[in-house]
This record gives sequence, C-alpha cells and structure tokens, in this order.
Amino acid sequence: MQATYWITLAMCLAVGFCSAQKPQHCRSPPLYTGGMTVGTQNEQLWAVGGYAYDAITQRIHLGEVGTYNNKSFTYDALMLFQEEVLYEINHHDKTCVKKALKSDFHPMEVPKAASFLSQVVLGTSSGPGQGLLVNSWRGDMPDKSGNYMLSFTEFGCLPVSALVKTKNMGWMSVSYFNNMLGVDPNVFIPPPFCKDAKLEDGEKADFFSIFH
Amino acid sequence: MQATYWITLAMCLAVGFCSAQKPQHCRSPPLYTGGMTVGTQNEQLWAVGGYAYDAITQRIHLGEVGTYNNKSFTYDALMLFQEEVLYEINHHDKTCVKKALKSDFHPMEVPKAASFLSQVVLGTSSGPGQGLLVNSWRGDMPDKSGNYMLSFTEFGCLPVSALVKTKNMGWMSVSYFNNMLGVDPNVFIPPPFCKDAKLEDGEKADFFSIFH
Repeated sequence: MQATYWITLAMCLAVGFCSAQKPQHCRSPPLYTGGMTVGTQNEQLWAVGGYAYDAITQRIHLGEVGTYNNKSFTYDALMLFQEEVLYEINHHDKTCVKKALKSDFHPMEVPKAASFLSQVVLGTSSGPGQGLLVNSWRGDMPDKSGNYMLSFTEFGCLPVSALVKTKNMGWMSVSYFNNMLGVDPNVFIPPPFCKDAKLEDGEKADFFSIFH
Repeated sequence: MQATYWITLAMCLAVGFCSAQKPQHCRSPPLYTGGMTVGTQNEQLWAVGGYAYDAITQRIHLGEVGTYNNKSFTYDALMLFQEEVLYEINHHDKTCVKKALKSDFHPMEVPKAASFLSQVVLGTSSGPGQGLLVNSWRGDMPDKSGNYMLSFTEFGCLPVSALVKTKNMGWMSVSYFNNMLGVDPNVFIPPPFCKDAKLEDGEKADFFSIFH
C-alpha cells in the first residue's frame, strides 16, 4: 500500500500537480488587454475591437468598430464600475456622454454554476508551440434568458471564445485574441473633454445594453 | 552597407528565419488525425466527429454524429480518392454503401488564391504554453458559390477553424481540435462487410455532398 502511495506521489510530482488534472473553474488574470470579434447569428451585429481589463479597480475600456443593422459604427466605452459611471467617448468630435452604470462588475471567469463540457487541444500537441490546451464550459444565464458556452485556456485562464444564446439575437459569438498581461493605466482615465460631461438622466446603462 | 548586411543577418539568425516573418500559404502535415465540430448558421446541421487524413495515398476517414433538420444521424465515410470510391459504413447494421467519388483529393492547405487576413495569438503570448499563433486567410470559392475564412496554426500548419459562406446554408462553421501527427493505417481499410458492396448507380458522390 505504501509503495503505491509513493509511486503515485512521485508520478504526481513528475507530471505536475495531480489536483490540476480535472479542469477547475478559473478566474482570468486581473490585468490584461486584448482583441475581440463579436458576431450574431442573424448578422445584425458584427464588430471587431480591443479592450483593457482591470479587475482590481474594476474598470473596462472597450473600443469597437463594426456594423449594426447594416450601418457602420464606432463605439468607445469606458466603464468605471466602482464609480458606477459609463463614458461613451467620441474622439473624432471630442464629445462625451456620461451615464450611470447599472451593472455590477463581473470578473472574467468561469461562472460557478457552469458545467465542464470538454478539454481540447487547438492545433496539435504533437509539436512544441503548435497547440493550445483549452477548456469549454456551458451554463444557463442566471435570469434564464438564454445559455452560454465559454472556452478558457487551461494554462493562464485567458478567454478564447464565448457563444451566448439569447432570445433577442439567437447566437452571439465572441472570439478573444492577442491577450497581453498588464495594462497601461492611462487608458482608464477619461479624456479631458469628458470633464464637463453631465450625468445623463434616464435609464441606467447596462454592460450588455451596448450590444442591444 | 556591409555592416548593415551583417547586423541584419545576425538578427535574422537570432530570431529565426527572416523569410518566415510574413505568413506563408502553407500545407498541413500529410498524416494526422483530429476532431471537428460543424455547425450552420440556420441550425439545420450540427455535428461533432473525428477524421483521419492521409495526403500521401489520398485517403480520408470521417466519422460524425449530429443532427440534421432536427433528426439525429451518425455518418461514417471512408474516402479513397485514388480508387475514386466512397464507402458509407454502418457499423451497427454491418452494412456498406459503395459510391463513385466525384471530387479530386484536395490537400488540407491554404488555397493559393486566398488572401492573408490577420495573424493573432489565441490565449496570450505573455506566458509559455498559454498561447497559439494563428494565421487567418480569406478567399472566394473557385465556382464563386460563396466565400471562406480559414485559420491555420503558424507553426505546424494545422487547421484551427473554417467559416464557409454558401448560398444554400449561409455560414457553415467548422472547428478543428486534438490534431495528432500520424495515423493508424488500419482506419483506411474497408471493414470485411464492405467486401461485397456493389458500386451504386446514380450520381457520383462529392466530398461536400455529405453536408448537403
């Protein structure tokens, strides 16, 4: 019995931590930037852009260009969740709309309620640098308005893709890429022309309302 | 001038081959197995399966389970392009349909006519084993029936994803994973119960007709 224990322990040490064998509900690193594409099944929305993510002081800066209902748009949003403020920034016209931000900050993570679906290698594990180990998870939206499938890297817990099915749009597909750890903190400072922006009356903005 | 040449050469040798800086139209390795998912925008088809690919003797073995028009199906096809024969195999009933194979063998590669779209890292390049360098290409189908976007790994030239827009189905999305170099050659030998299968009359089968 003791021999089995030692052999198992030695093998665990040789190949890494045994507890890491089963994919874990993970949370992404607290600070990173990256790119993303967004597309919907009904072709209503298509966008490509970039984001800076700061889970420590709960800030997201999102910039997108795309088409919505066959009309092209650019969108630049700075979300400061601790201040409950959303700035919609138009760098071209140097204008700024300041809105109350309704939603709480949701860290980028595999939700606790998500079920493990599968682990795959994108590319191949037959050669070094030719593959990426990815875990996929599925779950229902908390308000039962739809369901989702999320993929994160096994090592580093970076988002790879999200597929969200909502009643409004059918499937919405998001791909993430070019994630780089760390952020330039300046991207979370509102530009000077936002200083005099008054908080708009009306309904508070929701993180997801920008996609509606 | 000569100093510049030597500095450039030294830097090229230090970081790899300079000619590899611009993504190349590449061809995948000749022998590998892998998994794939297929889905269409109109939700008519969804399938998951595996394949064995042999570009040397021009053979593909494809096995899929999925739903087509809300009816579940299993499909097992052995394509022997040099013999111009397609076997549709039903292991459960031990039956076999033998058809003439219309299409030529197309190696898995970036088509010559495809245009380079972008190079991205899935995951991140900030940590080892956390990212995968991928090149995306776009092009029109040779018969102008639609267009496509293909992604291959930069290192190893393995397929990652394909998005094909056809008039029949809208977008068809294919994801590839778990590629492993090499094949078990036995998977290309028709099972014994295929021995007596007669070549069916009628239209020759096309590689893509299985998705129609």
